Amino acid sequence: MGMAVVCAGTVGGLRALGAPDEGMWTFSNAPKEEIAKKYNVRIGEEWLDRFQKAVVRLETGCTGSFVSPNGLILTNHHCVQTCLAENSSARRDLVAAGFLAGPAAGAGELRCQGEQASVLVGAQEVTADVSTALAGVAAADAARARNQTLTRLEERCEAASKAGATPLKCETVTLYQGGQYWLYKYKRYDDVRLVFAPEAAVAAFGGDPDNFQFPRWCLDMGLLRAYENGKPASPPAHLAFNWSGAKEGEPVFVAGHPGTTQRLLTAAQLRTQRDVVLPFWLLRFSELRGRLAQYSKSSPEAARTAKDYLDTIENSHKVRRMQLTTLLRDPVIEQRAEEERTLREAVNAKPDLKARAGTAWDDIARAEARHREILIPYTWIEGGAGFNSDLFVYARAIVRATDERTKPNAERLREFTDAQLANLRQSLAAHAPVYPALEQVRLSFALERMREYLGPDHPIVKQALGTASPDRRARALVTGSTLGSPKVRLALFDGGQAAVKASQDPIIALVREIDAEARALRAIYENEVQAPVQRAQQAIADARFAVYGTSIYPDATFTLRLSYGAVQGWMEDGARIEPFSRIQRMYERTTGFAPFALPKRWLDARERLDPHTPVNFVTTNDIVGGSSGSAMVNGAGEIVGLIFDGNIHSISGSYWYDAEKNRAVAVHPAYMRTALEQVYRAKQIAGELGLGGAGR
Amino acid sequence: MGMAVVCAGTVGGLRALGAPDEGMWTFSNAPKEEIAKKYNVRIGEEWLDRFQKAVVRLETGCTGSFVSPNGLILTNHHCVQTCLAENSSARRDLVAAGFLAGPAAGAGELRCQGEQASVLVGAQEVTADVSTALAGVAAADAARARNQTLTRLEERCEAASKAGATPLKCETVTLYQGGQYWLYKYKRYDDVRLVFAPEAAVAAFGGDPDNFQFPRWCLDMGLLRAYENGKPASPPAHLAFNWSGAKEGEPVFVAGHPGTTQRLLTAAQLRTQRDVVLPFWLLRFSELRGRLAQYSKSSPEAARTAKDYLDTIENSHKVRRMQLTTLLRDPVIEQRAEEERTLREAVNAKPDLKARAGTAWDDIARAEARHREILIPYTWIEGGAGFNSDLFVYARAIVRATDERTKPNAERLREFTDAQLANLRQSLAAHAPVYPALEQVRLSFALERMREYLGPDHPIVKQALGTASPDRRARALVTGSTLGSPKVRLALFDGGQAAVKASQDPIIALVREIDAEARALRAIYENEVQAPVQRAQQAIADARFAVYGTSIYPDATFTLRLSYGAVQGWMEDGARIEPFSRIQRMYERTTGFAPFALPKRWLDARERLDPHTPVNFVTTNDIVGGSSGSAMVNGAGEIVGLIFDGNIHSISGSYWYDAEKNRAVAVHPAYMRTALEQVYRAKQIAGELGLGGAGR
Repeated sequence: MGMAVVCAGTVGGLRALGAPDEGMWTFSNAPKEEIAKKYNVRIGEEWLDRFQKAVVRLETGCTGSFVSPNGLILTNHHCVQTCLAENSSARRDLVAAGFLAGPAAGAGELRCQGEQASVLVGAQEVTADVSTALAGVAAADAARARNQTLTRLEERCEAASKAGATPLKCETVTLYQGGQYWLYKYKRYDDVRLVFAPEAAVAAFGGDPDNFQFPRWCLDMGLLRAYENGKPASPPAHLAFNWSGAKEGEPVFVAGHPGTTQRLLTAAQLRTQRDVVLPFWLLRFSELRGRLAQYSKSSPEAARTAKDYLDTIENSHKVRRMQLTTLLRDPVIEQRAEEERTLREAVNAKPDLKARAGTAWDDIARAEARHREILIPYTWIEGGAGFNSDLFVYARAIVRATDERTKPNAERLREFTDAQLANLRQSLAAHAPVYPALEQVRLSFALERMREYLGPDHPIVKQALGTASPDRRARALVTGSTLGSPKVRLALFDGGQAAVKASQDPIIALVREIDAEARALRAIYENEVQAPVQRAQQAIADARFAVYGTSIYPDATFTLRLSYGAVQGWMEDGARIEPFSRIQRMYERTTGFAPFALPKRWLDARERLDPHTPVNFVTTNDIVGGSSGSAMVNGAGEIVGLIFDGNIHSISGSYWYDAEKNRAVAVHPAYMRTALEQVYRAKQIAGELGLGGAGR
Repeated sequence: MGMAVVCAGTVGGLRALGAPDEGMWTFSNAPKEEIAKKYNVRIGEEWLDRFQKAVVRLETGCTGSFVSPNGLILTNHHCVQTCLAENSSARRDLVAAGFLAGPAAGAGELRCQGEQASVLVGAQEVTADVSTALAGVAAADAARARNQTLTRLEERCEAASKAGATPLKCETVTLYQGGQYWLYKYKRYDDVRLVFAPEAAVAAFGGDPDNFQFPRWCLDMGLLRAYENGKPASPPAHLAFNWSGAKEGEPVFVAGHPGTTQRLLTAAQLRTQRDVVLPFWLLRFSELRGRLAQYSKSSPEAARTAKDYLDTIENSHKVRRMQLTTLLRDPVIEQRAEEERTLREAVNAKPDLKARAGTAWDDIARAEARHREILIPYTWIEGGAGFNSDLFVYARAIVRATDERTKPNAERLREFTDAQLANLRQSLAAHAPVYPALEQVRLSFALERMREYLGPDHPIVKQALGTASPDRRARALVTGSTLGSPKVRLALFDGGQAAVKASQDPIIALVREIDAEARALRAIYENEVQAPVQRAQQAIADARFAVYGTSIYPDATFTLRLSYGAVQGWMEDGARIEPFSRIQRMYERTTGFAPFALPKRWLDARERLDPHTPVNFVTTNDIVGGSSGSAMVNGAGEIVGLIFDGNIHSISGSYWYDAEKNRAVAVHPAYMRTALEQVYRAKQIAGELGLGGAGR
């Protein structure tokens, strides 16, 4: 990647029309003309509408798509891994063994406790409402006023939908860093069940070493089913497969929920990421990986119970590592600073723009300085890094929810509005297993490192540790807590402040002891960092619209986006990377040791399978984490791939789109078909997907 | 530390006379006039000579000082910890319990197997010899020619000394990055024994959380004794204590062997450190810390055997973390670039300087680009990071030594010249314990991470791992190797290439398999990075002398240096840090859990001890790692402290000296006296140090 320059046509960190396949576009601002011009494919409103209604957001952090009229959802194995782990035990490890529900639809399908699937059924711009509500509000009160306004808009929307046929979940979305506000309306399925998952060894063949690499050989697929009133749901739309996939150079489209990009951050904000935020997290993830890896070697049960969390840490570690490399090596920050200079000159040339946005970049730089000052205590204490454990997360949610519930809805912390409390209650009620030994490893590590960063004499460290060692204290907290029980959690949640106050649980007690300090740090962050930054970003966003127009895309926000591109390899160190991987090479790379050990079923099947079957492939689609599980369709709207990763250069996509090297990685439909028909012999599912001798 | 600017008077990264207490000066260029002017202390040649001859370099990486006519050496506990660990067993843990030899001098003193103590008895500049030898040599041959010249100078010096009364060890030293070459002559004691060490819990009270912090409460002292012909040695000089120490503001002097500073690196070199080298090592150390910390919890024996290595990793981690923070946050790189511009202008203004040094900075930048390209494979393969274990270090030393020995002395890799082979043989013969389980943890980690960075399909990764998992392969290598035995190592070393070729040891076999590739990487590094960098640095050094004169100090090189300063606290976040810590607060901070658990002996002694006794203190002396164990003396040449650490800002001293905040941390003599007399009741030692009722 070296010192390649940002592609021509880039505007304020985001390209205008005319450049390569960049952008995660909202469906309401899809670049239809650009697509028609470049790929000779006309996507109309109907095409977009059907695609949008077939896509679900999996609320634990992925994307899926309906692939049958009976609510079957296609997504990634790594998106259902938590569900597999939750439904496993020491004697029945579904992550390792995979899962296939019984032949009749619905028979034996396993509930994924914390999962929900949401379809975006409507989106309405509310920028004017927010502007009106904020007009004349003093700067110091703006953050609070904005939050109140957003909460009220959501309240009103949900109330209105309750009068109609389908009650909807309404969420406000901030696009273009405050340049636009929208109200997104979702139909939400809160009963989601597991239908099929292959063994982790084939789903994530190559494991962490191959993660974000290509060529790649992963059957990273999983099937869920949405239920309504205890029966398989009838989704508003679903997608059909084209089992032969797409050819090299063919245009393809991805609809999903990319999580976060930072392509609109100022140079000052990027420097904070590079100098403070990313190094901090990287060191933390590195050591945590070391602790968990070593802990996993202590017994098979330790390995089983730690796997899901360790996978997450390893993935985050790789992402952060490449993000830091990008900011240190690529010309991102200099480029951003240059773009800022250009935009500022344009702003300063017009008195009205200058009055509104002239100081915005300096305001952000000042807020960033404050950000750096509080980052370490904020992260350990309010961010919870110093108390890393599921039990602490439950405890804080309970303590804060019961406190916040006593306030009017619009006055609460945003995550405890009435609209959010129902979700929270569902997650407290979920029978997700808590592993005490793993909790102790995580919590001991967190307490020890918090002591390192804040110092042994910091009041919160003393409160958290007492005179004990981190190990001793973690053991006492975990073994003394009963928050692993959904019943206990719900009793406290429903019992309110009185129940919480009466609780003898040591983790509840710890949360209460440190909560004043934690909330104080949050207030500093919200008032002295977030609020001035939001104000300045909005001013910059407005100025950008004024100077460049609106044919640009917003940063990713885990809301629905469309990306277009084509099947295409790339050049790496002077060598061409072919866009398709094949089954043959997967078998050749098998060593018999994880993560290069194929399951027995696959070893047995080797002779039956066509060695040239395509396994994974790469495209130029612009995606990031959160896009996992997104269906990729061709111009006819047929599924030709299943996004599950990007190549290593795709991680730089957090900050810029490198057309030369950034590639999305997908599972080929021929490989999914081969797996279902020839390896798992999952006739029922194959039939539901339109196979059964008749697949095209 | 924030954005404080580099102190006035700085020249080319190093200050000229007239600025604060900056500099690690050679004894031959000691800033006597500056000291006289600033502190009104006149240090003469005799004072310097006595100080120099009383100081020893401990070849495992520390400094010590003779403190009795019978060869007693004062140094830090952390400098003797490896010796304590080597002499420990599962039933007798000397690191935990401390050690005190029997009452008669020499009785029961324990040999430190790998340790040697060297006194610098002469130093001679040989810059002209090197210049003459290199005159007319082509650039491509310069590195080899330089190495040959240095080896020959050492050979000739040692041969000459053998004719005299005392055979000396001769080592060439490169100062000012090639601006000067020197021949240093050492009297070396290769029989060094342990006399006294306190318990680790009091020596390193506060452990890793308090490391590089102040106030501090550590009895970080240890006593060794040099032997000659099996009897306590009579050193050329020794120092006496002033048990009341130095007052606030009093001038103090430190003589020791600071390891490495990088104050003369160019901005391009610093950027490589910031962008590539430091992040790489930090991530590696972080995860290794996690693995070792978790491994240590698996049993008390695991904790005991891992402690020494884990301590080293934690220390390195903290140093690297602060170094990276310095380069990201302090104005070091911008300042360095600015200084470069100034010097380049001066160079370009004079045709002769321009001809010799005009392109030097660009040459370095080009070499740095190459450096970045090969850094990752170089570090894992030739640097040995991918094979992290003591057994691998032994194996590679044996394989390479036996190969290199077949070549003429001047043609060999520099670490295998005749002058070095004797040291190597001593370390191969040492009975240092090898812990197989710990070796497996380290090696498994190393193999796994090498696979991550180089990719599972890299030829060296395939050679190193075969088709096994890192765990499986590490176990096979460690359990299959007999290199833990000194006898086996010596048989191979003495047996030469034939013995090595016949060896069935799997680690010897691994070293041989990868050695061609490893040596190829080394050749690239030496020829394409090191050689052009050395050539350019030498040109810059000459230019700097020409422009600024010679009253500047060279970067640290683990050779003898003098630093001056005064007892003084500093301001941190607006609060004043007092220069002395006292016993009372140490007891108040005791929790009963490591690393804040005092040994029983100290708990029992509490009532006997004066709570106001000074424990540790800080001074403005400019030191870095390697200075550990250095004696600090007053103007009269009496010991008033024992350097054992710096404050957190001292780590920035790798790149610049921050007069406002950089402080050295020392053990107070009153605390050592209290320990010896009142806690350990070590009468014999106290007597040998001039105590015994008569201490001043």
